[in-house]
Amino acid sequence: MSEAAQTLEGWYALHDFRSMDWTAWRLADESERARALEELHAFLKEWSQLEEQNGGSSAHYSIVGQKADFVFMHLRETLEDLNKLETAFNKTLFASFTYPVHSYVSVVELSNYMGQPGADPMENPEIVARLKPILPKWRHICFYPMNKRRSGNDNWYMLGMEERKALMRSHGMIGRKYAGKVKQIITGSVGFDNWEWGVTLFAEDSLQFKKLVYEMRFDEVSARYGDFGDFYVGNYLDGGKFEELLSV
Amino acid sequence: MSEAAQTLEGWYALHDFRSMDWTAWRLADESERARALEELHAFLKEWSQLEEQNGGSSAHYSIVGQKADFVFMHLRETLEDLNKLETAFNKTLFASFTYPVHSYVSVVELSNYMGQPGADPMENPEIVARLKPILPKWRHICFYPMNKRRSGNDNWYMLGMEERKALMRSHGMIGRKYAGKVKQIITGSVGFDNWEWGVTLFAEDSLQFKKLVYEMRFDEVSARYGDFGDFYVGNYLDGGKFEELLSV
Amino acid sequence: MSEAAQTLEGWYALHDFRSMDWTAWRLADESERARALEELHAFLKEWSQLEEQNGGSSAHYSIVGQKADFVFMHLRETLEDLNKLETAFNKTLFASFTYPVHSYVSVVELSNYMGQPGADPMENPEIVARLKPILPKWRHICFYPMNKRRSGNDNWYMLGMEERKALMRSHGMIGRKYAGKVKQIITGSVGFDNWEWGVTLFAEDSLQFKKLVYEMRFDEVSARYGDFGDFYVGNYLDGGKFEELLSV
Amino acid sequence: MSEAAQTLEGWYALHDFRSMDWTAWRLADESERARALEELHAFLKEWSQLEEQNGGSSAHYSIVGQKADFVFMHLRETLEDLNKLETAFNKTLFASFTYPVHSYVSVVELSNYMGQPGADPMENPEIVARLKPILPKWRHICFYPMNKRRSGNDNWYMLGMEERKALMRSHGMIGRKYAGKVKQIITGSVGFDNWEWGVTLFAEDSLQFKKLVYEMRFDEVSARYGDFGDFYVGNYLDGGKFEELLSV
Amino acid sequence: MSEAAQTLEGWYALHDFRSMDWTAWRLADESERARALEELHAFLKEWSQLEEQNGGSSAHYSIVGQKADFVFMHLRETLEDLNKLETAFNKTLFASFTYPVHSYVSVVELSNYMGQPGADPMENPEIVARLKPILPKWRHICFYPMNKRRSGNDNWYMLGMEERKALMRSHGMIGRKYAGKVKQIITGSVGFDNWEWGVTLFAEDSLQFKKLVYEMRFDEVSARYGDFGDFYVGNYLDGGKFEELLSV
Repeated sequence: MSEAAQTLEGWYALHDFRSMDWTAWRLADESERARALEELHAFLKEWSQLEEQNGGSSAHYSIVGQKADFVFMHLRETLEDLNKLETAFNKTLFASFTYPVHSYVSVVELSNYMGQPGADPMENPEIVARLKPILPKWRHICFYPMNKRRSGNDNWYMLGMEERKALMRSHGMIGRKYAGKVKQIITGSVGFDNWEWGVTLFAEDSLQFKKLVYEMRFDEVSARYGDFGDFYVGNYLDGGKFEELLSV
Repeated sequence: MSEAAQTLEGWYALHDFRSMDWTAWRLADESERARALEELHAFLKEWSQLEEQNGGSSAHYSIVGQKADFVFMHLRETLEDLNKLETAFNKTLFASFTYPVHSYVSVVELSNYMGQPGADPMENPEIVARLKPILPKWRHICFYPMNKRRSGNDNWYMLGMEERKALMRSHGMIGRKYAGKVKQIITGSVGFDNWEWGVTLFAEDSLQFKKLVYEMRFDEVSARYGDFGDFYVGNYLDGGKFEELLSV
Repeated sequence: MSEAAQTLEGWYALHDFRSMDWTAWRLADESERARALEELHAFLKEWSQLEEQNGGSSAHYSIVGQKADFVFMHLRETLEDLNKLETAFNKTLFASFTYPVHSYVSVVELSNYMGQPGADPMENPEIVARLKPILPKWRHICFYPMNKRRSGNDNWYMLGMEERKALMRSHGMIGRKYAGKVKQIITGSVGFDNWEWGVTLFAEDSLQFKKLVYEMRFDEVSARYGDFGDFYVGNYLDGGKFEELLSV
Repeated sequence: MSEAAQTLEGWYALHDFRSMDWTAWRLADESERARALEELHAFLKEWSQLEEQNGGSSAHYSIVGQKADFVFMHLRETLEDLNKLETAFNKTLFASFTYPVHSYVSVVELSNYMGQPGADPMENPEIVARLKPILPKWRHICFYPMNKRRSGNDNWYMLGMEERKALMRSHGMIGRKYAGKVKQIITGSVGFDNWEWGVTLFAEDSLQFKKLVYEMRFDEVSARYGDFGDFYVGNYLDGGKFEELLSV
Repeated sequence: MSEAAQTLEGWYALHDFRSMDWTAWRLADESERARALEELHAFLKEWSQLEEQNGGSSAHYSIVGQKADFVFMHLRETLEDLNKLETAFNKTLFASFTYPVHSYVSVVELSNYMGQPGADPMENPEIVARLKPILPKWRHICFYPMNKRRSGNDNWYMLGMEERKALMRSHGMIGRKYAGKVKQIITGSVGFDNWEWGVTLFAEDSLQFKKLVYEMRFDEVSARYGDFGDFYVGNYLDGGKFEELLSV
């Protein structure tokens, strides 16, 4: 008999990684670039207004290295909302100066491995706030997808619920040591994208990403049962910094 | 001695994932875009008429994220029918504004792991309807390919028929809990494409994909014996929504 | 001490998978397309004449799905013959409307796991016909490469000759059940390409590919020792159908 | 309970591998090439001045083979510094004659597996110099990323701290044999990029790379616990050699 | 304690695989093609003169199938020599009609697993000739990279020196059976490229590649400890054949 843990889901998430076609951007007419930037700013404003109305949340960060120039992370009520958002963006002049390099589709998830039995978590305003969070605008972002391993004797999904709960509890203890230093948003992507979870971390001090992920790697949950995909790290782009990034 | 389970096959399936060349589409003449859209609508109409005549079935969904802009899923009597269909599409002006990003070739399959001994399944109209199904036009689609694992002690194909039957029976119980919430079409692709099966799910509530696939992952069939490929998730495109997607 | 099985080799094989640049093809002048088609037909004729003279064999099939538009499969006496053939093709106008998507280099091979001890197989006209076969022009083709696995306890190459012979004998029994339904050409590619063997199947009923490969997968040779690459499936292209495929 | 080793971190590192678009470069106007070279030289000068002021360090090496034409390795105080640097470069005319082929983001790291208990390593000027090193301008560079393996019985992260310390000690002994011949900079990339560490080696005699890496491979730390990514090897580019590389 | 075998190194090797842009080549002016061919012939002549002076060796072979059109294999004294050579080639008009598809960097290596204890191998002119060999101009070439496996119980690098020596001795016996039929050049690439070794074989009869590699695969060194990369096979290109390959 299967015994999946109960999970709670909130807003759907799209991580949209993009790079600039710098040569085309540099060679474009001043007026064309200005028009493209207006489009971008209109989006940034629209997303920010929606966030103020609590209808979703968006954050934009540059990415260090050649994997991407920046990432838009969007949280929205439905998959259709995310789809509309990306299609509207794709139709702009600004988008034609970028190319897509990676994306990830998931949904904000709270596992209740550590939940209180008997309590309805949706009655808990703190939990609701975690399911539909306003994305932090901290200095740094880190994103990576992960699976729980199913390999020979290291098969997470063949463990009993109690054993998984105990393992996750000790795993969670490490996370708690970084409270205030690292904000973590877990999104589930089983059925939506190629990995089982997406992990998005925010920090003011980027070294905390390394310390947290490295310390967790020695915990049995990661050491024996964690498989990790590509890591992306970046810096917060407020409006001014985005403009600076794009000025040529 | 080998003891493969008996399977029943119906219509051949082609999943045809495509993305738009948005810049070319935006820059095209109004009249060129109109001509391309006419071609698209002629196809949609032709496919829909064939479906009414029970000669096949087609469905079109947008895809969330950068993996594709949309998918055409086609069921047809023969591989030649699928080939003609895709070639006819490739020759259009509309196709030249798209590029292929992924496809999958398979055939609708019913395993009789759970069949009644002695009964001819083709006498059963319900089974015939499942072998040549009209594709649902539900709000969401989810597609992924999968293998049964052959790895060390986790080798599905070295299990005896009875053990496999028992495992599949309990696996099927999970699926049945989602009846009415998730419609599932299993297509076999052994000998046709890179994985052994394609799984296409339809749901009105996209969270049901996550819940179903996640719950199954704790079942031994998936936990020990399932290997999964890339996941695609999307939203239903009726004629109007397709037009909206493409309007610039 | 090593104890490789004796193998017999015949014609060298090149599987040449190609896709059309449909936009360029559609936009080309009528006269340019006509000239390209003349080149193609000249090749088809030349290949067919060589086949009549028993100097080699060629077959052309469309491929279903986005992996390729068609495949040319060529058997020739030497690697130089195959190289000349592909280079001559590459230099044509027609080739410039196609792009290469996959190829496979191998040599027709008969293993004598099931041979008669003491008999010289090259005295056997049936064996010679199998080493230098005229490719069937059946309705469907299926191609995939494969390895014998060397992984932990599932290491084919650490088995003794007698054990391998016994396993292959039972494996061959399955193949024999499909005699008349599926024609199989095994080509060896150790030292020539990335996998150890290529398997090319021909059938009038494409479902037979699925049934054969699936039934074999439960046989220990495949279940424990088989690793499989990408599968390609397609439909026979006689001259008329090739013209139809290309008419715009 | 987890017991990650303490690590010390210094400057952030970006390895930026690039190739030339030789055809575009050759066909460009003499004056355009001159302008592009001026941009490059301005960067080289700026980087060199920063190095003199101890604000970071940069090195440039050609890469042998088709993987890249050259690599810029940069050490800087923050991820924002690295990001600014790469964006400034991307906006130049010179950059438009190159294309990015690989990058790696990490941070200079000292593990104190071999540290003195009780001593504050940041009081040690030698350690500070190793955390914020001036990159050698030796004749050759070698770069590769690596993981500590977590696979069945070969799971580094399930070993106890004492066992890991003992293993690393003997591993370090090999490195020490190459003192003076190979200079090694270890950068940690857990949380920053796809592997756990980057290893950058410098040598006057490129054979020493082979001897060092090969000898280490027999050490248990590498033999049982090391997974390695792609290797890049190259030759030092002083200003004159860079000019020579680019002269057409 | 580590106990790597002693190895001897000679010339550095670059395998440079390239394909033609056949459409651009066909459409170029006669005079442009002539100029490009002159550049090519100048290189071939220069390389051949260096070989006569024993300063290095080069060979050029066509490659069968779509992986490449041809390979230049170069042996030179230093990595800088190889770098200069490839850069000089990249700057030519001829190079702009080709595109790089694969390369491999290594160094000619003799393992002394089978060496005489006490003897200085560099005193042996036969060994020196093997470390700085003139590449054969035999009819066929075969190239593949390989690793010694480190996987669970099949971990080459955890074996003792004596066991490795014994295994390699029996492995070498197979090679010796092909003396006169297959000439083998082993190049080491630990620290230089993605695999540990490159194997380049030459033969007048291309079937000997298959027979040799297949027979070795049953030997424990390959069966349990060998991991193999992509295989390339081709035909010798003397000046006349190169011209023929390129004539349009």
